[in-house]
This record gives sequence, C-alpha cells and structure tokens, in this order.
Amino acid sequence: MAPTGASYGDDSPIAAFASAPGKSALTLIRCSGPGALELAASVFSAKDKLLQARGNTVIHGWIVSPGNDKIDEVLVSAFRAPKSYTGEDSLDISCHGGTATGNGVMAALRAAGFRDALPGEFTFRAFMNGKLDLTRCESVMELVSARTETGRRNAVNRLSGALENEINVVKKKLVEVLAGAEIFLDYSEDEIGIDAEEDAGRLPGRRLAEEALARLHRLAESWRRERIYQEGILAVIAGRPNAGKSSLFNLLIREDRSIVTEIPGTTRDWIEAWVSIEGIPVRLVDTAGLRDSPDPVEAIGVERSRAMLENAELVLYLIDGADGVTDEDSAFIGELAARQNSRPLPCIPIWNKTDVAPMPQARQTAAGHLLGISAKTGGGVAELTASIATAIGKISGQPETAGTPQPAIGTTRQKNLVEAAVSALEEALTLGEREEPLDLIAPLLRDAVNLLGEITGEVSTADILEEMFGKFCVGK
Amino acid sequence: MAPTGASYGDDSPIAAFASAPGKSALTLIRCSGPGALELAASVFSAKDKLLQARGNTVIHGWIVSPGNDKIDEVLVSAFRAPKSYTGEDSLDISCHGGTATGNGVMAALRAAGFRDALPGEFTFRAFMNGKLDLTRCESVMELVSARTETGRRNAVNRLSGALENEINVVKKKLVEVLAGAEIFLDYSEDEIGIDAEEDAGRLPGRRLAEEALARLHRLAESWRRERIYQEGILAVIAGRPNAGKSSLFNLLIREDRSIVTEIPGTTRDWIEAWVSIEGIPVRLVDTAGLRDSPDPVEAIGVERSRAMLENAELVLYLIDGADGVTDEDSAFIGELAARQNSRPLPCIPIWNKTDVAPMPQARQTAAGHLLGISAKTGGGVAELTASIATAIGKISGQPETAGTPQPAIGTTRQKNLVEAAVSALEEALTLGEREEPLDLIAPLLRDAVNLLGEITGEVSTADILEEMFGKFCVGK
Repeated sequence: MAPTGASYGDDSPIAAFASAPGKSALTLIRCSGPGALELAASVFSAKDKLLQARGNTVIHGWIVSPGNDKIDEVLVSAFRAPKSYTGEDSLDISCHGGTATGNGVMAALRAAGFRDALPGEFTFRAFMNGKLDLTRCESVMELVSARTETGRRNAVNRLSGALENEINVVKKKLVEVLAGAEIFLDYSEDEIGIDAEEDAGRLPGRRLAEEALARLHRLAESWRRERIYQEGILAVIAGRPNAGKSSLFNLLIREDRSIVTEIPGTTRDWIEAWVSIEGIPVRLVDTAGLRDSPDPVEAIGVERSRAMLENAELVLYLIDGADGVTDEDSAFIGELAARQNSRPLPCIPIWNKTDVAPMPQARQTAAGHLLGISAKTGGGVAELTASIATAIGKISGQPETAGTPQPAIGTTRQKNLVEAAVSALEEALTLGEREEPLDLIAPLLRDAVNLLGEITGEVSTADILEEMFGKFCVGK
Repeated sequence: MAPTGASYGDDSPIAAFASAPGKSALTLIRCSGPGALELAASVFSAKDKLLQARGNTVIHGWIVSPGNDKIDEVLVSAFRAPKSYTGEDSLDISCHGGTATGNGVMAALRAAGFRDALPGEFTFRAFMNGKLDLTRCESVMELVSARTETGRRNAVNRLSGALENEINVVKKKLVEVLAGAEIFLDYSEDEIGIDAEEDAGRLPGRRLAEEALARLHRLAESWRRERIYQEGILAVIAGRPNAGKSSLFNLLIREDRSIVTEIPGTTRDWIEAWVSIEGIPVRLVDTAGLRDSPDPVEAIGVERSRAMLENAELVLYLIDGADGVTDEDSAFIGELAARQNSRPLPCIPIWNKTDVAPMPQARQTAAGHLLGISAKTGGGVAELTASIATAIGKISGQPETAGTPQPAIGTTRQKNLVEAAVSALEEALTLGEREEPLDLIAPLLRDAVNLLGEITGEVSTADILEEMFGKFCVGK
C-alpha cells in the first residue's frame, strides 16, 4: 500500500514488515511513532498489559481485528521513547510466518491508524532523533547488503562509529586551523602576539591541516577496496565451446563452499553465481562458447558473451587441452591482451583437461603463463583459486590490513564528500604556500569542514536525506 | 549445517533462523534449551544484563565472536522457562538483515554451543512440554502456509484450540460410554442393578455414542472444504493459440488484487500464479495453445498442456470470438464433457473478444452455456469470477458457514485418525445393535478413544511425532 502524501518529515505512526517475505516460522513487523503503543493496544488482546508495559518488555497476546476477530497469536516487544531504535515509542511484533498471516496483522495495524512506512523511514527517524549519525545509518544498509564476511565486518566497523570518529577527528583538526585563521582575520598579528612564522607559509596551523589532509587521503584510498568488497568483481569464464567452461563454473561454486547467493540466469545466454574468494564477492559468469555460428540463436548468445566481456574485470580463459591452443584461442587472448592497453583487463589463461591432455612445453601466451587444471577431477583448482585471489588483489589495490579494521569509506556519497573536502583543503594549502591572504584561504577551510559535517549528517538538507533514505529497504 | 546425531528427543540447546532468508531490514534467530541464556551470554556484549534478565525482557547489545570481534548489533528477547514458546529458557535474537550478518550470528551461536535445530523442533519441544497439543502444533504449520485470508482464519481457529476442544468433547462422551460398558463387563447386571433395557440393544450409553459419531461425521466432512482452502484448486486456462489466454490470465491476476504468491514458470511451457477467489486459493495456469503443431518444441508444449488438463479441477476454455466456435473448439469441449463421466471436471466455456466479436445466438456447448468476456477491455470478467466461485463451491461441497468458524480438520493425519475412529465407533454400534457381547464391543470403543487421543497427541509414538515435525520448516 503506497502511503500517499506521506513524507519523511512527518511523525505519523508507521508500520512495515522488517523481515523478508516468504514461508518461514516467524515474520517481524515493526511499528514506531508517538502513540504507537496506544494504537497497537487497540488491536491487541492484552490491551492493558501493553498500555502499562515498561520499555524493553515482551508481551504475549493476539492481534485482533477491530471487529475482535483473532488474527494471529504474537509476541509484542514494547519500547518506550527515547530507548528504542528510532528514539520514539515503538514495537516489534513477532507473528507467525507466511503471507496471509503477515498481511492480516498489517491490515489490523492500518485499521488501528498506522500508515505504511517509507523505505528507510525507521532509520531516518533514528537519525533525526540523534540516535545514529549518517555514516552509521548508511552502514545499516551496507550490513543488509553485505555479500561476504569481510563486507559484513567492514560495515560493522562503520556501524560501531569508526568512520564517524575518524571524520570527527579530522574535522576537529580543521576547525582548530580555521579558528586560528579567523583570529588572524579579526585581529592583526601584533594584537594577538602569535608568531605566524612558526608555520611555513601564511597559514597558521599548517601542520595540523597537513595531518588532516593525510588522513583524508587515506580515507579516500580506502574506497577502492571497500567498493570491491561491497559490489564484488565480475569474472567471466570464456573459451571455445566444449572447453569445459560449465564444469569449471560448477567446480568453482562447489569448491568454494561460501556461495553467498545464486541468481538464476536472467537470460538464457549465461548463468551466474556469486562466490566468495578470499572474502571478496565474485560474480562468476559462465558464457556461451565463443565461435562464429551460423545458428542465429547461438550467434546472439556469442554476441552477449562478448558484451559481458566488455564489462568484465577478470577473464578466466579456458583452453580445451584435447585440442591444444587453437588459432581461435590465440586470436582471442591476443585481442584481450591488446585491450589491456586501453583498460587493464586481467586474464588468466587456463589449460583444461590435464587429466587426459598434459600441458604443453610452451606455456607462454599473450596474457601470461598457462595454468593447468582438470575441471573433471578438480586438479589444479586450488592453484586457480589462488591465482584469482592474486588477480583480485591487484584490482583492489592495497591488501586488507590484518588486525583492527581501519576506518574506511562505505558509500559513494561519503567518497564524493571526502574527495571534495580533499580538494578544498589542498587548494587552501596551496594558497597558503603562495602566501595568499587568509581571507581567501579561510572560506576553503570552512568548505572542507562543512563537507565533513555532511558526511556525518551534522550539516544536511532535506533533499539529500530523502534521496539517501529512499534507497533503503522498507522496514529499515 | 546438518546437525549430525541430533534427534528430536534430546534437550541440547538449539538455534535456527526463524524469519525468511533474503535482503531485509531484520532477521530473527531463535534459540532454546536448558542453559540457553548462559550460552548466548558467552557471545553477547552485555553478558551480565542477559544473565540477570527477567523473563520477557529485551536487551540491547552486540553479538561477538569468541575472539570478541563484533558481529552485529542486536536486540535479544529473553524468556525464562516455563514462560516461553518451547517451555524452556529461550531467546529471540533480532539482528540486521542480509545473508552475511545472519550467518555471522549463527556461527557465533554455534561456537557458543548451540546446535542447528531440526525442522519443527521448537514446536516439538512446545508439544513435549505441554504448551501445545498436536492439533495446535499442526495449525502453526498451516498458518505459515496459509495462502488466503480464509485459510488463515481456519488455521487460527485450530490454533485457538477449536479442534482440540471438539476432540476432547467427543472423547469424553466415548470414555463415558466405555466406562459404562466396562462396569457391565466387571459385574453382572444383577450385581449393579442397572437396567440395561433402557438402552436399545446391548450397548449401554448408546445415545451418547451416537452423538459422538454424529460430531465425528461432521468433522470428517469438514476436511473436504478445508483441504481446498489449504491446497487450493488447479484451474487451467485452455484454448486454441491466440484465443487470448494470456490476456485473460493477466486480467484475472490483476482483477483480483489478492494474489497470494506467484511462482515463476518451472518449465517454459506454462506460467502459473495463485489468485484468491472468494477466499479459496486458485492455482491459475496459462497453457500453451492447443493445436497439432509440426514444430517439435511447440508439440511438447501442447503435450504438457494436456497433461496439465489431466490434473485440472476446473477448466476455463477460451474461444476466439474473432474465429467463432471452430471444429477444434467443439471437439475439445466435447472431449472434456465426455470425460466428465469418468471424473467430474467442471469446464466454463468462454467466448472472448466481445468488444469486436459479439456473442452468437446459439450459446449452448457440450460443457454448458457460453460466457462472454473481453479480455482486452475487461468486460464480463466480474461475471466470470462469479462463475468460477460457483464452480469452486460445487467442488468444495458445503459452503463456509458464516459467523463463528466451526471446529474443522486441518491435516490428512487428523482426517485419517477421525475416519478410523468413525469406523471403530460404527462397528461398535453395529455390534451393539446385533446384541453381541460387550467384551467384543468394548475394545472397539477403546480403539476409538485412543485414535482421538492420537489426534491431540495424548497418545503418541516417537515415530509419528518425528514424521510429523519433520515436515515443519526449520526455526518453527
């Protein structure tokens, strides 16, 4: 039910499914807003218990229709403002699973006066009520989408406030620099007696600004790795028909038990599955064999395989050991290698069927040394996985540091703001070096501070918030 | 993770996902068993709070790994035996949604000493601890699978104990009859001075037994209707190619907003969707057009359409109004009508495209009067839905009584037991009529009482229980 006229700004009582739909033991429905407990009590069998409930208590009873028909036997967790996720009075209703039951309970809640929540509206309210800063709000969404254990760990790190704290540390340094600069602007040097010559250039607190810049650079760099942990890498298995591509595909999925999710082929032309290799989600695609075909349907398949290759970040090129390296293989690998000039496209050339066709002496190809496997027996697959991991490591840049995870950027929004702050700060430092007047430099510093404030949500506009939370799922 | 060596009988602490997997705001994980709170506390940041928690309270904190890494920020609802679903100490952990997060929390719980729950194991424990009788346990599963509002209401009726109470009422009557019979067996008539002639035949308490039988008959009859509410009816849309079958299919799905679930075509040959018509789930199937085709793929499609028709309980036969009733149409409808002799297969013959091709004067077909619709404009669809509802009413037998739902059977297991009790009781009454000795009749009465006891689980064996709960979903 689309809540017409609803907006993120209002404080109507809201309700939404919080767990995934589908056949399951239980379904969780979340409610929040001023008067939420009273409204829910009007469709709850143990009315008085709920009305008198202390925060953080669980009450057993039945959700009933306004006509007093029993809808479902449920557990209601009651939360009293401000001790709740949203900071408002709220409830988590744990009802039986299944479509009809959940729909019945939602219908009763609507009848009681709740409206359907907008996407991300619970988290939006948590932000507005000062329960979470924006980086933590975003990490909630990242957590839900995390495809691998590493992705989860990085999101949890942000949820714990690692990024928020880092941004605040950097901001504090810049605010200090800015304050110093503004003192210089308001008073003459003589008046305040600060020896500006202590700092190189005309910018007081330059060292502090440089420290801040170094930390921001480190954050900006973290994005390259984080993006890959979140979005994964597209690895395409290519090769001539019958080279054993599908066998390798199945083997990699089985070999690496940590399949994260499996997407049924959206077209008939390729099959894909997500596998986790060294904590990085890899979208592995099995394509149609590459050959010129007179069959129009197969020709379309081959065309799509080539289109897939255009977007690939890694190619596993499979050679049919039984046939040896054919001219077609060499031509294709040469093509890829040539393309590496325009955009680096790592390719691992693989000799399949080592169980029946031993590797040749000459193992050099245009894309590097041949790697031998037998997709049938599984021989060489561990080495292949290691090669894939190395290739991914090269793509993702610096390796994950062991031990405590470092603060890192989690979203494009954060990345854009950090980069904008870096630009402003670099410009300020350049002007400072050129000994330009402070009243040209100070506004740049102020920009940088504001940009950092936007990351945590200290500085924000309705538009930005609406766009950000609109990307969340309902119930979050 | 398959819990090896685990069995329904043990009392190990168990854990399982209780909400559906998938991308969602929250995921619910359930834990139960002696020491569950203590085990969970070993991987929970607010250990002491959890250890000291009173029952039915919610605690905020982090699930941590045994190495103290943060896994996820969660809400833990703590329940103290016997005030919980299972009757044991238990917890509901509400963690963030997404695969990686849920898996991380489950891994921590396993490390803490929980094993993965078997299907239905929570409900099994609820039964063993006397929290629910078997009819209520089964209603929990019915609720989860309910496809329509009526299906949900019927399941809720059983969850409230309607069937349990009815069975107990009937059993009480039979126990009374049995007790009377046994007094006669133990003592001679003269000794106890009861006038056996008061009852017709030799069975004392015959009228009571007949009352019990009537109630059991009513229950047995309820199954026919209930089965249809639960399993639905298979309605196949058939007709020549281009008669407008897919348009009608889409129209019926859109027309009736209460689509319960949509199953993507498991084969390429037909598409199906569940729609709710008058509270009855209808599995509507759009088939390949019926015609002899030289194309081998299409021929397979047509063959499968015919196979689908073999299992259909209702056929919507669509005639292309632009072509009129062709020989092919007549032949097919005739075929269906002829088949009605072997098995009643209701068929609604429909004239499509009334917007451009008006209905003919002669509307009689072998399967009944033609109904006119325009799948394009939606004209006549309300009448069609009404016809479908009428046809379904005929299939399901007696209509749903308005007002308070009557006690009804919800599973094949219950139906078989009721029918067996009916047989035993009928035989006992027959023997009584024939004035056979009471020591032949009493064992039959005892059988009937035991069969009824099996329905509620008062009498049960490990095998039966294991088979029953094994059909549940995990986490239930």
